[in-house]
Amino acid sequence: MTESQQHANNLDSWSGSYAVRAETLAVSEVRALFSVVSRPEVVSLAGGMPYVAALPNELLQKSYEGMMAKRGLLAMQYGGGQGDPVLRDQIRELMALEGISSSIEDIVITTGSQHGLDLLSGLFLDEGDVVLAEGPSYVGALGIFNHYEAHVEHVYTDSDGMSPEALEEAIERMKKAGRTIKFLYLVTNFANPSGVTLSAERRPRILEICRRHHILVVEDNPYGLLYFDKPVPDALRSMDEEGVVYLGSFSKILVPGFRIGYVLAPPAIRDKMVLANESAILCPSSFGQMMISEYLSNADWKGQIDTFRGVYRERRDAALDAMAEYLPNLETTRPDGGFYLWVTLPEGIDSKAMLPLAVKELVAYTPGTAFYGDGTGHNKLRVCYSYPTPENIKIGIKRLANVINLQTELLETFTKKAH
Amino acid sequence: MTESQQHANNLDSWSGSYAVRAETLAVSEVRALFSVVSRPEVVSLAGGMPYVAALPNELLQKSYEGMMAKRGLLAMQYGGGQGDPVLRDQIRELMALEGISSSIEDIVITTGSQHGLDLLSGLFLDEGDVVLAEGPSYVGALGIFNHYEAHVEHVYTDSDGMSPEALEEAIERMKKAGRTIKFLYLVTNFANPSGVTLSAERRPRILEICRRHHILVVEDNPYGLLYFDKPVPDALRSMDEEGVVYLGSFSKILVPGFRIGYVLAPPAIRDKMVLANESAILCPSSFGQMMISEYLSNADWKGQIDTFRGVYRERRDAALDAMAEYLPNLETTRPDGGFYLWVTLPEGIDSKAMLPLAVKELVAYTPGTAFYGDGTGHNKLRVCYSYPTPENIKIGIKRLANVINLQTELLETFTKKAH
Repeated sequence: MTESQQHANNLDSWSGSYAVRAETLAVSEVRALFSVVSRPEVVSLAGGMPYVAALPNELLQKSYEGMMAKRGLLAMQYGGGQGDPVLRDQIRELMALEGISSSIEDIVITTGSQHGLDLLSGLFLDEGDVVLAEGPSYVGALGIFNHYEAHVEHVYTDSDGMSPEALEEAIERMKKAGRTIKFLYLVTNFANPSGVTLSAERRPRILEICRRHHILVVEDNPYGLLYFDKPVPDALRSMDEEGVVYLGSFSKILVPGFRIGYVLAPPAIRDKMVLANESAILCPSSFGQMMISEYLSNADWKGQIDTFRGVYRERRDAALDAMAEYLPNLETTRPDGGFYLWVTLPEGIDSKAMLPLAVKELVAYTPGTAFYGDGTGHNKLRVCYSYPTPENIKIGIKRLANVINLQTELLETFTKKAH
Repeated sequence: MTESQQHANNLDSWSGSYAVRAETLAVSEVRALFSVVSRPEVVSLAGGMPYVAALPNELLQKSYEGMMAKRGLLAMQYGGGQGDPVLRDQIRELMALEGISSSIEDIVITTGSQHGLDLLSGLFLDEGDVVLAEGPSYVGALGIFNHYEAHVEHVYTDSDGMSPEALEEAIERMKKAGRTIKFLYLVTNFANPSGVTLSAERRPRILEICRRHHILVVEDNPYGLLYFDKPVPDALRSMDEEGVVYLGSFSKILVPGFRIGYVLAPPAIRDKMVLANESAILCPSSFGQMMISEYLSNADWKGQIDTFRGVYRERRDAALDAMAEYLPNLETTRPDGGFYLWVTLPEGIDSKAMLPLAVKELVAYTPGTAFYGDGTGHNKLRVCYSYPTPENIKIGIKRLANVINLQTELLETFTKKAH
């Protein structure tokens, strides 16, 4: 507990009343940055915001008009807890692009895929249960697992995604320790934060290992359609209907402002997801769902995804070019889609300690420790290139280089003196 | 566990993997009706749907256009976990109508007030904790408390709302039994399902008792502005800033389709609510929030609430007139606002068992047992008059009378034979 939290508790007349799970809530390292990076002079390479300005207003305007004309009363009303059947049918088509065959009965609409993962975690995780995840893994998922008092065991991940050998080893190790593994959580394509995609060759191997050990696979795929050159390998869910829960989102291929995502799950899990969704929120937003449904019906949404791909490819190039120019000695991942570079700093530099200096230089990023549940990642940082213009990405990485180079010099001076 | 659930579990290869809390999920008696009552020939007096057709489309159209012109990019984007500051400031003015003085810092926007209550319950309720509530109480709240494995202790409630004497007695009884009481949950105005309003005289007494026993009060007030004759007494929150968490909603004074509600809480609780909100959904829908914000800025929203009041007053009158005409011997509450009548059937008639017969007669209602956590309420039922036209309310209650009268005759015949 920090000093300020201690102080707050002393002022809190309800401090003795909270549930155990309330103690798991901590300020996310990513979220805490929001106040800083909203200052216009700071180039933010931190938060993973999509570039929504690339969506023409006319497309949403037409969706609004079409929706109100056809389903206005339904859009304003409460709906079913599983979500709009029309949208669910359209989601089937969307998932078919990644090889998935599904029934609308098995799809549940959620308040962003974040809430899908939250509800799913609530269904499966008791205190002390183990979740296996990539190392590094998505900060928002780690927050959820922590909130349900689960233990996250990171599995070694390289440029082809999670290592099957390391997965097998981690499972054996957890089992020997008497731990209960509830599921494997994976961001399979252009992962947050690493930018890495699980290779086609590894996909069936990961599934085979999980089937053999009876471990559920949670496949989180918000970025799969945002590839730059060639489509991603077929989804894990396309190869296994019973062993995989698939999470999808409209936040990156359309806009996040509606907070609409979806879950495709085996029937028994889907039934429980619907009940959990109803208990938590009664029903997802009819208005948001029907705006998206109308958009998918009438806009050239595939063309719009192409537009987004072009925007993000240009920004990925700008980021990699700037890295090559200003920080040529640093190791970085080279993503083929999505939003993120994962950068390794020289040993001894702590990205979290360095952040205030970077913000002083008017650039922000996300420290690597945010993406690990075990306190590692000090010499890593995430660069998100999705939101700033290519020019600002270049300026931001140049500023970042100034900070890192200064830190490296200081470190070298200090090391020399110490010898 | 029902037979069909048992059957489902046998087919569920993950049946051994669920968390303990997953077992608390059950199909809500209200939600299970949705499939039935959507048939057009059935007059539904069941689900608590507002009459959204009373909102002119032009008002939303103007909100959409104004929002996109002024804040289009923000509306499409992720926002902060606490919600839009502009909307929070407008919510301050809305709450001031019920005597509440507040700061925008202490307001958290949620995905309907349902999610506010879900998040709050997650912060406070450990297994076996006690929640005090009216008898009857809101079915959606009971579902949440059950999901967090809390025990609901109903407190005697009459036409002036919860009895302070019964509250004091229940607290003493729970304390003697060694139980931990976490909060008192109240729907203070035109309660769901009873239609009853907590009297001005009882409000400070309820607060005094809770303060003395250090029990948090959760004041849920979706219907307060929908009074028919005179405004409701000032909110509990207006008399106690530290001891009350207030839940509000736009679902009944505007439309539910955005799923936007709000929570006003003491600072320490509010901090935890923001973190819990971020963990569960990242942020509430920017689009929904900004549509509402623009509506509150530019539409005659007070005039629109007057329109809603007129619609619901006429329907309340139609419902009470039809009760007087077709079921003159039955006891019913006589609400001064809101959506609901609470009807007492002759002893021996079970409203849940009677429901299939009613649906066969093409009328639906909600059985009384849905509103109790302790299995009581068999001879009660809820009539919701908010959605059907006055003519259909009359037809529905006439059909209901046929079913009830037939049941009463059968009961009398059976009772005579048994003697």
